[in-house]
Formats: sequence, C-alpha cells, structure tokens
Amino acid sequence: MIEILKNKMTPESILTAGFGVEREGLRVTPQGKLALTPHPPVFGDKLKNPYITTDFSESQVELVTPVCYSVTETYDFLEALTDIVINEIDGDEELFWPYSMPCDIPEDKNIPISTYQGESGKKAREYREKLMAKYGGKRQLISGIHYNFSFSDDFLEILWKESGSELTYKDFKDKIYLKVLRNYLRYRWLIIYLMGCTPGLHESYIKKCLDCMEKNGHQTFLSQGGTSARNGNCSGYKNEIDLYPDYSSVSGFIGSIKEFISRKNISEAKELYAQIRLKPKDFANVLGSLERDGIQYLEIRTIDLNPFDKCGIAKVDLEFLNIFMLFLLLEGEEFFETWQQEALINEVAVAEHGLESDLELLDKQHWTLKTAWAEDVLGKMAEINEYLNLNQDHCIEVMLNRVKNPQTTYAYRLKELMTEKGYIRTNLELANKYKSESVKEHYHLKGFENWELSTQILIKEALTRGIKVTPVDASENIIALEKDGHKEYVKQATKTSADTYITPLLMENKVVTKMILKENGIPVPKGEEFFSFEEASVKLPKYVGKKVVIKPKSTNFGLGICIYNNGGSFDELLEGARIAFEHDNTILIEEYIAGLEYRFLTMGDDVVAVLHRRPANVVGDGILTIQELIDIKNQHPYRGDGHTSPLKKIELDDQSQMFLKKQGISVLSVPKPGEVVYLRGNSNISTGGDSIDYTEEMHPYFSKIALAAARAFDAKFCGIDIIIEDYKNPKSAYGIIELNFNPAIMMHAYPFEGKERRLGYNILKTIGLAE
Amino acid sequence: MIEILKNKMTPESILTAGFGVEREGLRVTPQGKLALTPHPPVFGDKLKNPYITTDFSESQVELVTPVCYSVTETYDFLEALTDIVINEIDGDEELFWPYSMPCDIPEDKNIPISTYQGESGKKAREYREKLMAKYGGKRQLISGIHYNFSFSDDFLEILWKESGSELTYKDFKDKIYLKVLRNYLRYRWLIIYLMGCTPGLHESYIKKCLDCMEKNGHQTFLSQGGTSARNGNCSGYKNEIDLYPDYSSVSGFIGSIKEFISRKNISEAKELYAQIRLKPKDFANVLGSLERDGIQYLEIRTIDLNPFDKCGIAKVDLEFLNIFMLFLLLEGEEFFETWQQEALINEVAVAEHGLESDLELLDKQHWTLKTAWAEDVLGKMAEINEYLNLNQDHCIEVMLNRVKNPQTTYAYRLKELMTEKGYIRTNLELANKYKSESVKEHYHLKGFENWELSTQILIKEALTRGIKVTPVDASENIIALEKDGHKEYVKQATKTSADTYITPLLMENKVVTKMILKENGIPVPKGEEFFSFEEASVKLPKYVGKKVVIKPKSTNFGLGICIYNNGGSFDELLEGARIAFEHDNTILIEEYIAGLEYRFLTMGDDVVAVLHRRPANVVGDGILTIQELIDIKNQHPYRGDGHTSPLKKIELDDQSQMFLKKQGISVLSVPKPGEVVYLRGNSNISTGGDSIDYTEEMHPYFSKIALAAARAFDAKFCGIDIIIEDYKNPKSAYGIIELNFNPAIMMHAYPFEGKERRLGYNILKTIGLAE
Repeated sequence: MIEILKNKMTPESILTAGFGVEREGLRVTPQGKLALTPHPPVFGDKLKNPYITTDFSESQVELVTPVCYSVTETYDFLEALTDIVINEIDGDEELFWPYSMPCDIPEDKNIPISTYQGESGKKAREYREKLMAKYGGKRQLISGIHYNFSFSDDFLEILWKESGSELTYKDFKDKIYLKVLRNYLRYRWLIIYLMGCTPGLHESYIKKCLDCMEKNGHQTFLSQGGTSARNGNCSGYKNEIDLYPDYSSVSGFIGSIKEFISRKNISEAKELYAQIRLKPKDFANVLGSLERDGIQYLEIRTIDLNPFDKCGIAKVDLEFLNIFMLFLLLEGEEFFETWQQEALINEVAVAEHGLESDLELLDKQHWTLKTAWAEDVLGKMAEINEYLNLNQDHCIEVMLNRVKNPQTTYAYRLKELMTEKGYIRTNLELANKYKSESVKEHYHLKGFENWELSTQILIKEALTRGIKVTPVDASENIIALEKDGHKEYVKQATKTSADTYITPLLMENKVVTKMILKENGIPVPKGEEFFSFEEASVKLPKYVGKKVVIKPKSTNFGLGICIYNNGGSFDELLEGARIAFEHDNTILIEEYIAGLEYRFLTMGDDVVAVLHRRPANVVGDGILTIQELIDIKNQHPYRGDGHTSPLKKIELDDQSQMFLKKQGISVLSVPKPGEVVYLRGNSNISTGGDSIDYTEEMHPYFSKIALAAARAFDAKFCGIDIIIEDYKNPKSAYGIIELNFNPAIMMHAYPFEGKERRLGYNILKTIGLAE
Repeated sequence: MIEILKNKMTPESILTAGFGVEREGLRVTPQGKLALTPHPPVFGDKLKNPYITTDFSESQVELVTPVCYSVTETYDFLEALTDIVINEIDGDEELFWPYSMPCDIPEDKNIPISTYQGESGKKAREYREKLMAKYGGKRQLISGIHYNFSFSDDFLEILWKESGSELTYKDFKDKIYLKVLRNYLRYRWLIIYLMGCTPGLHESYIKKCLDCMEKNGHQTFLSQGGTSARNGNCSGYKNEIDLYPDYSSVSGFIGSIKEFISRKNISEAKELYAQIRLKPKDFANVLGSLERDGIQYLEIRTIDLNPFDKCGIAKVDLEFLNIFMLFLLLEGEEFFETWQQEALINEVAVAEHGLESDLELLDKQHWTLKTAWAEDVLGKMAEINEYLNLNQDHCIEVMLNRVKNPQTTYAYRLKELMTEKGYIRTNLELANKYKSESVKEHYHLKGFENWELSTQILIKEALTRGIKVTPVDASENIIALEKDGHKEYVKQATKTSADTYITPLLMENKVVTKMILKENGIPVPKGEEFFSFEEASVKLPKYVGKKVVIKPKSTNFGLGICIYNNGGSFDELLEGARIAFEHDNTILIEEYIAGLEYRFLTMGDDVVAVLHRRPANVVGDGILTIQELIDIKNQHPYRGDGHTSPLKKIELDDQSQMFLKKQGISVLSVPKPGEVVYLRGNSNISTGGDSIDYTEEMHPYFSKIALAAARAFDAKFCGIDIIIEDYKNPKSAYGIIELNFNPAIMMHAYPFEGKERRLGYNILKTIGLAE
C-alpha cells in the first residue's frame, strides 16, 4: 500500500485530509468556580450554531471547527473560535477553564444542565437529564478534545483504483476506516501517554475518584504516576461496564450496538463512550446511515485538553496525529480473541501509571516495556515519514523526547505546577494568561490575518453568531455566509446583495452624486466641472481669492485634492487643476466649507458610527524629536499596513517633509510638551491619520442628513463625509463632500480614540442574517 | 440693455435659452389618405407620454421635445422623435404627412377624434368633440410647429440686476416676456414670409377655403401669391372673430381673457388661438398660475411645417428664431390704439400675398414696402449679431436671400412642385424620402450618436413609450428613466437597480463563478487555477497533449485566451500561460469542449436572444483579394467602432496576418467562390466577428440551462456563453464558459445575420418600467 502512496501521490496530497476538532471547556468565575450564568446569548440558538454551542452543562462551551484540510487551517480556526469565546465571556468577567477535569464545582442539583429552544431542544434536554440521573453531573463536566479525521477522496480513490480491489468504493472505504479504527484501539495507549494531561482533581469532584489520588493541599488531589485520570478507571467518563463491539465490519458493528441497546447497556448508539467512533453521514439515524452511506470519518475521543495551549491542543500534536493516522493505516494487524481487552488494559495502565518508567504493556499477549514499544512505533513512523518525504520529522522528534523524558510530558509538567500552586491557581493563571493574549489581539481573527480587517470583523461576528462562513476567494475578500438556508455572498465586508448594482456606480461619479443629492433637497457645495486643463485655465480666474477646493471627479483615498481655505492666486489654482488632472480626466472646483469633516457610516436604516479623522500628527513632550515621536506612535498595535490593521503607520514621504518645511520645522525638531504637530494636510487614515469616534457626541440632526443622503441613492452601506462647522449645533453650516459606497469600517470598529463599534453585527443585520 | 449683454455675458450664454418644439403631423396611407387606424399602442397612454401623443385627431401625431438648451440639441431631439414615429408607423405601412394642410381627408363624421384613457381622458375627448361641432373637423387636422422659448435664468437675472430695476424679479421677467410678445405680434409677418409654407390645398378640404384658391389639376388648389394659407383668413385655424387681449400687463391680459369667456367668444383660455401665447407654470389653472407664478415662457404658433425637412422645421430656421427673439427683446416699441389690428393686417397680407414683390405693409400706420422693411429688420439683426459676436451670420444671410429671392422660399418651392406633380404626389414623395432615411438609420438615435449604442437602444425605446429620459452623464452612459413617479438610473443600458451589487462582483471572478455554478448543479469545464508562472510551469506537464484552454482569471473581450483544441506541447502551453499572465495575476487552465460557442442573453426571467459569433471572416468570390473582400465587408452600415455601431470593422493587425500566414495565405490571396477565410481564431465582435441570431433555432433545453445559470447568481441581466456540440440536440455535450454581467446587447439588436431583437423593451420590462 505504501508503494501506491509513494508512486501515485505527492507528499502534500498524502498529508491532505479532512480534520475537525471539537473542544469543550467550562466557563468559570475569576475564583475558579463553575459559572452559573447562561450561555452568552450572542452565540444564538445552541442547536443551530455550528461553531460554538454547549455540551452537557449550560456552563460547558463546546467549540467545533468545520472540516479543514490542513493542520494549520484547523489549528487557526480553533484559535479563532477560542479567542471569540474568551472575549465574549470576558464581558461577564468569566474565564475559560483550560483543563479537562472540572473546576470548583457544586453538587449535582446546582449544576446547570444545558437549556435549548424548540422541540428538538426538548429532546436534547431530556437526554441530558437522563445522563445526570445515570452518571451524576460532575462526571459530565469533564471536557476534552474530539479529533475528527477523514482521508481525502483523492487519497481513497487512488488507493482503491491502484490496489485493484474488487470491492465497491464504499466497501473499500469502510474497510480502510475499520482497519484504522482497530489499530487506533490497539495503539491508543501511546496517545494517552503523549497527550494525556489529567494528573489531578479538585476536592469538589466525586469523592470516590478523589480516593484514587493523593491529597496535596490547596484542595488538590494528584495522581502519583498517571497521565490521564480522564482515561483511567477511577475518574473517567465511561460506560458502566466495558463493551466490546464487533469492529470487523460495519454490519457486525451495527449488530453489536443493537444488542447493547437491547441489553439496556446503553440507551442509544451515541451513549457508547468508545475511544474512537465510526461517524455516519446522517446523525439522526446513525446505524441506518452507516449501513447505507458507509463510514464518513472517524472520531477520536481520547485526547485530554492541553492546558499549556490556549486552544486546548498543541499544533505539534495535531501534526503528529496526521501522520499517526497514516501509520495506523499502514501498520499490519494480528487478531486474537482478546485483542480489545488487551487494548483496554494498556489504556488504563498508561492512564493511571504512564509516567512510571518501568511500566509494561501487553503487546500481542506479551508484556513489553512501554518505552521500548513507544520508541518502536515512533521509529516506524519516522521510516514512513522519510520514505514518503513527508517532512514531518519535527513532530516525531518532539514525541520521542516525551517518551524518553517523561518530565517533558504535559501530565508531568502540570502535576509539578499543581503541587506547587495548587489545582485552582494553576489553571486560573493559565486561563488569565490566555485571556490577556486573546483580548490584546481581539482585532485579529486567527487564520484570517491575510484578509482585509473589515472582512475579518465580519467573519468573526458570523462565527460568533453561528452563521456558517465559507471563504470563497481570499485574494478578493469574498465570503459566503449562510444561516437557516439563507445564503449571502459578501465582498470586502460591505459589498452585498443588499445594495443594487447601480448605487455604487452613481456614487462613484461626483457630478451625478451632487445632482441626486440636490434633487433630494440635501445641500452640497456649489461648484463647476472642467474637462480639460485649457478649460480650467479659462474659467479659473473667477475663483481667484475665493475659498475653494479643487479635486478629481473620481477621487481615491483623497489623492489629488487641493484646498484653498484662504483663497488662492490664479497660479495656485492652476497648479491645483494640474494636480487634480493627474488623477482623472475631469476635475471639480467647489466652494470650500469651513469646519471639520466627519464620516458618517450608515448601514440599513441606521447611522452606526460617526468619526472625525485627524491628519497624521504627533504630540510633543519637549524631549523627543518628531521622528522619534512618530516611531513611538507607530508602535501602537492598531497601526500597520492599514488593510489588516485598523490604522496605518505614519510614513514620512516627500509630501510630509514638504509639509513640515512649510511650517519651518523638520523631523529633527523637538515639539513643546502638548504641542500637536501635523505631518500633512489630508486626514485620510490611509496616510497615517487618527480616527476619533463621535458616534454619541454628534448632533442627531446631522446623522439624519447622512441617512437621507444614503437613502437618496437607496444605499444600504454608505460612508457619508460631511463638513460641519459645529457638530453640536444643528443650525451650523454644513455640506456633504462625498459619498463612499465601500466605506472602511475598521477605523470605526477600532478607532484611535473613543469607543469601539461592533459593526460586524450591523452588517449581518443589514443583509438579513441577524436580528 | 444691449450694453449689459455685451459687458456681462459671453456670446455663448446670450444664445443659451430654453427651447422646446412641438410638431404635429398626420398619419396617412401610402395613397395619401388619412389613416383611420388607432394611434400605435407602443406609444402608450396619450395623456402620459410626454414625447409622442396625439392632437385633435387619433391620426394626428404630436411630437414634443423637452426643454433643450441649444438649437442643435433641440433639433436632434426632434429628429430622434421623428425617426421613431416614422419607423413605428411603418409597421402599418403608414407615412408621416410632411405638410401642414391635411392630406386626402374624409367628411367630418369619419375623422377619428382622439380617444383617451381615464377620467381626464374623458374631458380631453369632450373638449375635442366641442371643437369639432364649433369649427368642423377638417380645420382641426391642420398641423404646425409650436415653438416654445424662454430666456435662461442666468440671462434674466443678469439683466435684472445690472439694469438696476426696482421691480421684483418676477415682475421684471413678466415685463420682459410681455415686451417680446408684443414685438412678436408686430413682426410676425416676417416669420410668415420666411417660414410660411402652405401654398396649396387638397380638394377634400373645406369647400369655402378651396374657393379662395385656384384649381390646378391633380385635385390640387393653389394660392397665387400667398405663403401661408394656414395663417390666412380663408383656410386657417382662427377664432370666429378677431380678439385683441390687453398685453400691457399680466393682470390686464387675464382681465381680457375673462371678458372673452364671459362674452362666450371662447370657452376657456386655451381656445384663444393667438399667434403667440404666455405660458404658465400650472397648465391646469392657466390664469391663476400666470398671476401667481408669472410668465414661464412664450409659445409661438405661427410656423408652418416645412415639408423640405424631415423634422418639419429646418435647423437654420431654429437658429434664426434664436437671434430673432433677441431682436424682439432689444427692439423699441411704439404704441398707438390699433397696433394689434395693424399687426393682424400685416399677418394676413403676407399669408395671402407674401410672394408678391410689390406688397406693402403697415409700419406704424405707414405703408411700407415689405421687402425694404424685411431687409431693415434683418439688417438690425446683423448689427446685433456683430456687436455681440454671436457668430450667427449664416442664418441671417439665408433669410436675406429668401427676402431678396422669393423663389427660394419654402412656399414658392412647394407650389412649383405641386403645380408639376400635384398636391398628393408631392407630399407622398417627400414622406417616402424621409421614411427611407429614417429606416436606413434606424439603429442610430439622433442627438445621442456619441452614446454607446446599447444606451441609444434603451433611450429610443423609452422615448417611444413615453418614459421620461434624462441624460445624466454622457461620458459614462448614465441616464435616468422615469414614469408615473418610478425613477430608475441606468448605466450602460444594463447596469441597473434590478441587479444587486454583489452579483457582478461574483460573476467577474471565474473561480467563484465556477464554484457557484457547480453548487447549482450546472456543468462547467474542469480546470485548475495558477497563481504564478512558476506554479504553472510545474503543473502544466500533465496537460500536455490534452484539449485545454488557458485564460486569465478575469477576462476582458476575450484577450489573453489560448485554445489547444488538438492538445499542446509543453512549450506551447507555457507560452499560453505567459500570455494569460499578461492580463491577470491568476490564470486558469480548463478542459476544452468541442462545439460552437453561443451567447444567451437573459433579462429578468427570459432568454431574450441567442446568437453565435463567428470569427472575423470573408467569403471569397474567385476574383477579389482578401484585402478587397475585407474593405467591402467593412462598408456595411452596421460596421463601425463597435461602440456606436452594432458591429466592428475588421482590422488586419499582426495577429490576423499571423493567422493567415499559418494557413499559408496572405491578404493578397484570392479565395475561391464561396470559400470562407477566417482572419483570426477568436470570435469576439470587438475584433470584427459576425453575429448570427439563433434565438428561435436554439433548442429550449439550453435556454433553460442559461436561465438557471443567471438565476444561480440572481442576475437579472446576464450574458451566458455556452459551448454546445449540437444546438438542436438537448442531449449534446455542453459546458458554460463564462457569465457576463454587462452583456453587449447591440449584437443581438442588430445582428449580422438573422432577426433584429427589440431589447430596449426587455430592459424596460426588467426594471419595471414596461409591462
């Protein structure tokens, strides 16, 4: 089989598979007690949000990645969801418990079981109440990682065709997955050793389980040499008796499950708490679907949360699992009657004694030193890696180190911390660390850093609210959003189906814009349009000495605009015309209105944000030079390239140097304390300007004007620039300068000064995907 | 006053005024009998179509230009409307009678009075029935030109301010218009001489009127020396008694009208058949509005149809009227009791004896030789023209010639023709001449020739149906359309509010397009996307020898596409990738599907046209060279620049030369009779391709596919390119190549072969402006 892979596939395609991770975790108070608050309403209907839901308890958040096709993609998506959850629950000052075993928990009657909406919600609730009665609530609070894996269709098809199998493709696939499943059962002890990380319990946990551990002060109970209490016999989440289904075929498996149910060992298929599960296409009818549609993927449920990683699982572990699945596929099998019992013995042995150096396991009915066997398996994996040029040396090395040096395992490291600091403090410190990381980077969405920030904002809000996000074209920032059968495509966050085709075409034309505004009774600056430099030079004399602005007909980031706020000479106006003609073949001259320019952002029927943009500037301290002040200002985390960051770094180009020179200063000048030095005339964020939120401060009269302007174009997403003399006074002079049909939203979402605006929500509302 | 004009205004702004022309005309059979068919339904509700309606009779079409601001604009608009009317009535094989006096008309009881819809239609009908009873039907069939004139606001405001008038602006305006009106009354005889053209009558006209003329054979009755029977006492359209309103002030005028009504001389204000009228803002309340809002403009009703011009009035006459109005404003007045009677005497004298060389008129109560007086007036106009640099010498020269040489007047020339050929034949020959001109140029819309042809098609259809058209931006082909309060902006004919903003953004991205088509179960060619030339060069080997197409991700007019329909070598594919990368930074390679490519044009829920495009080609005759065949083919009236013409001239660029060379021939080769020589590989119309209509021939199965593709994007206007092996066979192989969101429509509207498609209607229907 390995020869087929070697000859017919590239290393990249061998490693390409379907990955999905589910990660559970408890919401806790800053003191480490189970949070008794409801699941945050922003996550919406738990049964409909595909990304963020609850498990058994209302306080137990479950994060679910969609199927991803690389480890990096999977990890990034999980991190994005993790950041979202941490930031959202931060509103209630709650923390996200990083450890599989529960925090400081109350008695069963006070553990809040998940509540749900609707008819199917009623069933979900009843099922949980039954579990509570049968297994107790505390055990149900254990959290972990579920790792979903499927080979790619390409991979399976090549294997099927090239192996000359006489089976149908479906039967061949089932055979492949069943083999991997059986080998997983045999080798799961290795994962429990490498990734197990539940060495301790809190005194609020089940008394019987605490008794298996040693009391250690700080309300902490620790295992002596175990890696994973969660996978052990004492504390774990297991069926009441050991069950060994028939894994030789799908029909055999179905037969066993039916028998378990008829024997009342379990009430339905999903109550079988296996370490690995066969997953069907149709979850509503597991057995029927497995038979009809075949096995779709495998779900591994062994892995403990890794509290040393914000996401609960390290990327290197995901990398290892990728090649481990390949090993399971390639490794031979030996069958004997008690192979499943043997695998269970090994599982429990490693879970409860894995850190003991002389631990022996049963390898095909012979006792073998765990370390030697582990090294043997990792050696085989290294061979596969080398033979197929998979380039996965690093993760195998890391695992070999864990085998050779047990003190590098998660379980050992965590036990050390818990011994020193106690159970609660250890986990709270980690939770707080992840919280500060997530909050600091809240304006980035992991895995989508190369997308425009505005699209990141939208994706983040959609993921939060359980709206299905499909990236469509990263280079063009196109995504698809879907909820309850309603699908919307969005480009660059605000180009949507809510607006019509003609609206932006009208708005991008300044002359048409003015015409339509006028028709709708909205004041615009008076002006004239020139089609050639010659025409301008003939007609400019009458504007000499008047307060005017000269600009290209279609502007772009404020380029080519000259402002004569004290009137200009003929030569100066002519120069302005020359500059404007560099950007368009039609230019405008307009009366200049005194005042500050404000950007009103409208979405649907609302003005959702207002801000003023201040030209790039620094504030002196009497000590540092302008250059030094710029360097410091540029270190603000919001300043970057202006596409994937809310603000742009200030760049000292020729224009700024000239601007300083005109003021009689240079970058080496030292401004006085508090002195504001402007570095250019235009205030665009794209040239280093500051954004200052005025949403609440702006007089509502002007917001009404902005909305009327947007409505005149039937524009659902619109950025309206208005010059206003006094923003507090509705009788103040004002004039609409420009309408923008693809308004920047990041400067409002993350302004330099003032309140951050949650605009992703407004976008979703405007396109009918949120209420 | 002239000094103000000289010093404060440019010649251009002096001549800028508001012009509007109404032109009536009868629909007639090819035999010159009054057409008894209804007004063409395509013109819609007569009371709502602002451009094309009826006057007294159902058979009397009235063309109305909107207010235009230059003579050229006015004339062009009138020509556009004329062409529309001539082409539309051509469907019934009717002609547009070019002469003011009626054709061969039936007795009153058989003259169809206009029918109307609705409540206000009932009133309009009743008014006409009253006229029929009072004046008889035949006289009501007389047609003419109504010339509406207003000074520009700028013009009036400058005069008002600079003259230091103590009147309000409204009163000043009224004063100006009243002066011009009075002078018009005094000098109207000159217009009747210069432009009068009703020297003859048909024997079917009113017996009493025929008696004033001489019988001349061919059922023709001719005046001996008259210029305008329509303005004379015998045959014209006049009140029963001569009425002289008070024109000294608006209130004086209102008083007179009220008195006429109370004396039952007329039933309402509009029944006063004055040679010139004061026009109000509100037509529903003429007198009240004149008092409240002041005079808005003047309507001159003197002018006969000019049968020597397709539009009924020559452009030079419009030019003359422009400066004539200025003369009337500047010329002094002398008041005496009978000035109105004197003016009427002159009117009738010229109308009935204008061509007599020794005719004398009453100038301020003194008999003066008409010729001398006319020369005097034209001399004064020439002085004004020179003093103000108006550059209107030409039209004054032309009029001077008419004065000096009466045989150059319209009346004289027409009488000559009627004498020779008779009344009916003379007019039918002219009508047929205009018809063939209009039909020949039916794909052009006069006055809009610089607009894209697709926009011309839409404007023409809108004008036809009485949808108000406002040109918004000619350079960007943006217009506004309005009907019954429903306003739509349209850019380039198919960019409208019917489509959403996101649709074209998705469609312009080929990868997204394929994704969405696939999701909707529509077959697309298989392919792969490359982001760099390096990537392409690594991945191209597997396509060697396969039938593929390489193209840029976003194509434009088929540029940068290479087709390997017999497979390509690695080097050839590499070259294709290089070419494609010249047009985009992402390219596609796709399987090549054999067959011909068809363009399906969808609008709303319909496939409105289908065509196949054939690459630029010539068909040999065994005599001419390829170059000569191209030159001949390029002479087809549809071939031009491809924007203002339906098809593009074939250009022999390097690529075509190369293409011929590959076939072992050159432009100097002589193809055999019937041999088709292709001049290039791609079939775009923009590179000289032929369009062949397949709308009826195409199997409906493929039209359904095209519609499904458009619907997948929710696209209301869409051009779908599908390669189909056999367009008659629904089981044939096919594949969607591309979707176009701004589909060319002219190639369907005016195909090289096959039926012309009336797509303007489909556009209007799709945006809700037609049913």
